[in-house]
Amino acid sequence: MWTKGEPRNRARRIPPQQLSFSTPRRSELQLLQLRQCSSCESTAASKPLSPDHRELGRRQELFTTSIYSPGSAIFLPNGARIFNRLVEFLRKQYVRYGFQEVITPTIYKKALWAKSGHLENYAEDMYTVTSTSPSRAELTEGGEEDEYGLKPMNCPGHCLIFASKNRSYRDLPIRYADFSPLHRNEISGALSGLTRVRRFHQDDGHIFCRPSQIEEEIGKTLDFIRLTYGVFRLGSYRLALSTRPEQFMGSLEDWEQAESSLRRALDASGQPWTVNEGDGAFYGPKIDVVLTDSDGKEHQTATIQLDFQLPKRFGLEYSAPAPELEQKGETTTDPELLANYGPVQPVLVHRAVLGSVERLMALLIEHYNGKWPFWLNPRQAVILTVNDTEPVVNFAQRTQNILLGVSPDALDKPTAPTHLAVDVDTSVRPIGAKIRDAITNGYSLVIVVGPKDVEKGTVAVNATAMAPSDASAEELKRLKSLSMTPEELLKYMQEKVAAYE
Amino acid sequence: MWTKGEPRNRARRIPPQQLSFSTPRRSELQLLQLRQCSSCESTAASKPLSPDHRELGRRQELFTTSIYSPGSAIFLPNGARIFNRLVEFLRKQYVRYGFQEVITPTIYKKALWAKSGHLENYAEDMYTVTSTSPSRAELTEGGEEDEYGLKPMNCPGHCLIFASKNRSYRDLPIRYADFSPLHRNEISGALSGLTRVRRFHQDDGHIFCRPSQIEEEIGKTLDFIRLTYGVFRLGSYRLALSTRPEQFMGSLEDWEQAESSLRRALDASGQPWTVNEGDGAFYGPKIDVVLTDSDGKEHQTATIQLDFQLPKRFGLEYSAPAPELEQKGETTTDPELLANYGPVQPVLVHRAVLGSVERLMALLIEHYNGKWPFWLNPRQAVILTVNDTEPVVNFAQRTQNILLGVSPDALDKPTAPTHLAVDVDTSVRPIGAKIRDAITNGYSLVIVVGPKDVEKGTVAVNATAMAPSDASAEELKRLKSLSMTPEELLKYMQEKVAAYE
Repeated sequence: MWTKGEPRNRARRIPPQQLSFSTPRRSELQLLQLRQCSSCESTAASKPLSPDHRELGRRQELFTTSIYSPGSAIFLPNGARIFNRLVEFLRKQYVRYGFQEVITPTIYKKALWAKSGHLENYAEDMYTVTSTSPSRAELTEGGEEDEYGLKPMNCPGHCLIFASKNRSYRDLPIRYADFSPLHRNEISGALSGLTRVRRFHQDDGHIFCRPSQIEEEIGKTLDFIRLTYGVFRLGSYRLALSTRPEQFMGSLEDWEQAESSLRRALDASGQPWTVNEGDGAFYGPKIDVVLTDSDGKEHQTATIQLDFQLPKRFGLEYSAPAPELEQKGETTTDPELLANYGPVQPVLVHRAVLGSVERLMALLIEHYNGKWPFWLNPRQAVILTVNDTEPVVNFAQRTQNILLGVSPDALDKPTAPTHLAVDVDTSVRPIGAKIRDAITNGYSLVIVVGPKDVEKGTVAVNATAMAPSDASAEELKRLKSLSMTPEELLKYMQEKVAAYE
Repeated sequence: MWTKGEPRNRARRIPPQQLSFSTPRRSELQLLQLRQCSSCESTAASKPLSPDHRELGRRQELFTTSIYSPGSAIFLPNGARIFNRLVEFLRKQYVRYGFQEVITPTIYKKALWAKSGHLENYAEDMYTVTSTSPSRAELTEGGEEDEYGLKPMNCPGHCLIFASKNRSYRDLPIRYADFSPLHRNEISGALSGLTRVRRFHQDDGHIFCRPSQIEEEIGKTLDFIRLTYGVFRLGSYRLALSTRPEQFMGSLEDWEQAESSLRRALDASGQPWTVNEGDGAFYGPKIDVVLTDSDGKEHQTATIQLDFQLPKRFGLEYSAPAPELEQKGETTTDPELLANYGPVQPVLVHRAVLGSVERLMALLIEHYNGKWPFWLNPRQAVILTVNDTEPVVNFAQRTQNILLGVSPDALDKPTAPTHLAVDVDTSVRPIGAKIRDAITNGYSLVIVVGPKDVEKGTVAVNATAMAPSDASAEELKRLKSLSMTPEELLKYMQEKVAAYE
């Protein structure tokens, strides 16, 4: 969602910590870069330059940009592979956390953005969509072209879905997830890499719940966040609760109830948290996740926001017994009250675990500094041939097919691939040079096939790139030349992926 | 890609068979509907009304639409599940067929659409994107707002990726795949369901290859198409080759070479094919897949198009020995010629296997008439409780968790779900009514849990909905009450999914 309701202009930019669900205004990554560059002058020898995700992205062929679409990253195959793995990771957790994916429009008529409040509060950051040919324009009653807005957020679309059907208290919570591309009109001079963009994707989720369910939903989302950042090994983070600002909508009672729900959920999480007094959005309080990187710098990523206003603007409701108590999040056993059903307004929770997928990728690129964990690495393994004799090349190909899960001859059977990323280098070059290239290019596993391997039916695997940082010399030596059959190697790789190593 | 280069206007619509890679102009599905409705007057008793994907889509909660975004389907959770399964199916085959997924921008500056020829040939169908706030507009040198076009096709973006790096003949073919949403400005009065839309997704692919590789690439694509339509059990289709039209670009020699490549690939496919003389696009010949449905009506879906023009417009090239011969698709062993490297223009093959994902979904919805094959069914199984005692409800929940692959208590471990769609109905209603509802709602498997099942640790499964149409009475009786442990049932379900049953 967006920020406080003040009019916005170029001169007065809102500080990033007040903007949630937003493209980062000022890239902390860039700031970090600048700070370190200046400090490098004095400590150049002791402190290496921090990695820059744009440079690493170029070197690893993860993404590129074009003058024809500034601010819209073009993900090359390697980058798209990482992107899709992140989405796939989330989809898997969605089964556990009860999110249902939906696919929603990219453009909506201005009337929707008026209803949602975006035209009033967010127009500066939006794009307008019109018919290129005047003959295809649709007109409003006033005779003007009926324009569209290119969506900067998914929430109004999800409200339309909620409203498309009668809902009962038994159906709640309803949790929608959406990976749509979103567009926000950032000033062109400020665009940079994956952190300051105009087109991006959120791992966006909206929970429509009963007032009595807020605490549990927040608690589950905090669990989800903890799980996810644990898998990425991104280090510690703190939770920041932003409370009622001076300008706010809704009743004081609503706010107090919501804030105390959030506080209870934060306490129950067992994680450290702080308060940003008066820093909530005008429509409700929120919790932000603030990551601390290895240099001690902070990055805001995940966010959880309560929203009382959008359900009101869209007239959302569900049917429940004892509706007045239900609206306050209270329960009763009084049969007389329970016999009376009525409409209740659901609470909307906006939440993103990664935040902007693009931005999280920038963080991961810099955090791993080009050395991807195996499960995310777009270059998981490369098979190198010692020579170009037919038996060696054939065995290399056969090994690749086994690792990929592909049967090249089975034309009438669908492929059930392993989704591992395995390349082959059969070029006629000295094996030493091929190994050096493979290591430079960041492959996790370097697999060598020579005539002896063909005889034994095994391959020689160098897995030192996967060694933990505290591995002993002995362990490193062992990992440097493992001998396995292709099938054993496949099992080894699949276990590493399943364990998110 | 688009159609012949003539100027287009409202009065003269180009017939659908000339439009490839397009939103269907006139929905064959709708035409079919109309025809059958009129024929029903006389044969109402003998012939049931054909299914309507809009009505089935509403009933099965697959998709909906909104006045705020006419022509953009909103996929509800059930529809998104089918959509994602189709995409996942293609992604799996991409490993076998060597496609690499990329993620590309939604908006590009008009200068790109001028370069690609869309502004000249396709502007009527396009949307323009501008800054909503004048203060955020970027200006051209002429002082006008530098506008964007909302992409109707992915090809220009993929050309940018090809051009972003030096390419060698050794790198080719390069095959990019993209599932981006596309927008085409259809006239509002004609919009309908999933067949006549403004926003849609293609299973879009672009192959950049050497002239000598055309035939093999077309052959592989035909294999891919045959495999896919076999999995969907959509019945027979024919292949239609569209040849050089009166208005064409490029040399006669190019055309003859390309057409004979296509003919050879068609012959080698062993499938029936016909010729539409002079029906090719102005930039190259093409092959369309024409499906015949159970009523004998034809639907154009997949398409394979050769394109000599876009690589020229984008100045695409790769480096190869003996470049003049290479450009003609010929090879040499002359060492003198081979020592000379030079730039060669790649051939571009546009191809889509499903075509429009939305439109193929409409076809599938009507073809299956609400009775989805197990692997695609968004309602694969439902677990019904005989009563609401704790042991019964707990066992039902445990069974659901096993079938979903979810461990609700393992908060610190990522979930590795089965991605099966399994619901539970623990409502306090007579089991007969619950079973009837489950069957009406189209569940493939109806699973009943009662006190005796809890004791035995098994569930009672009714799998008659999965019986083949020619199943014997005995077989149907057997399928009506299978008794399995939850683990056995999971294995049974996973085998059905793996076999695309």
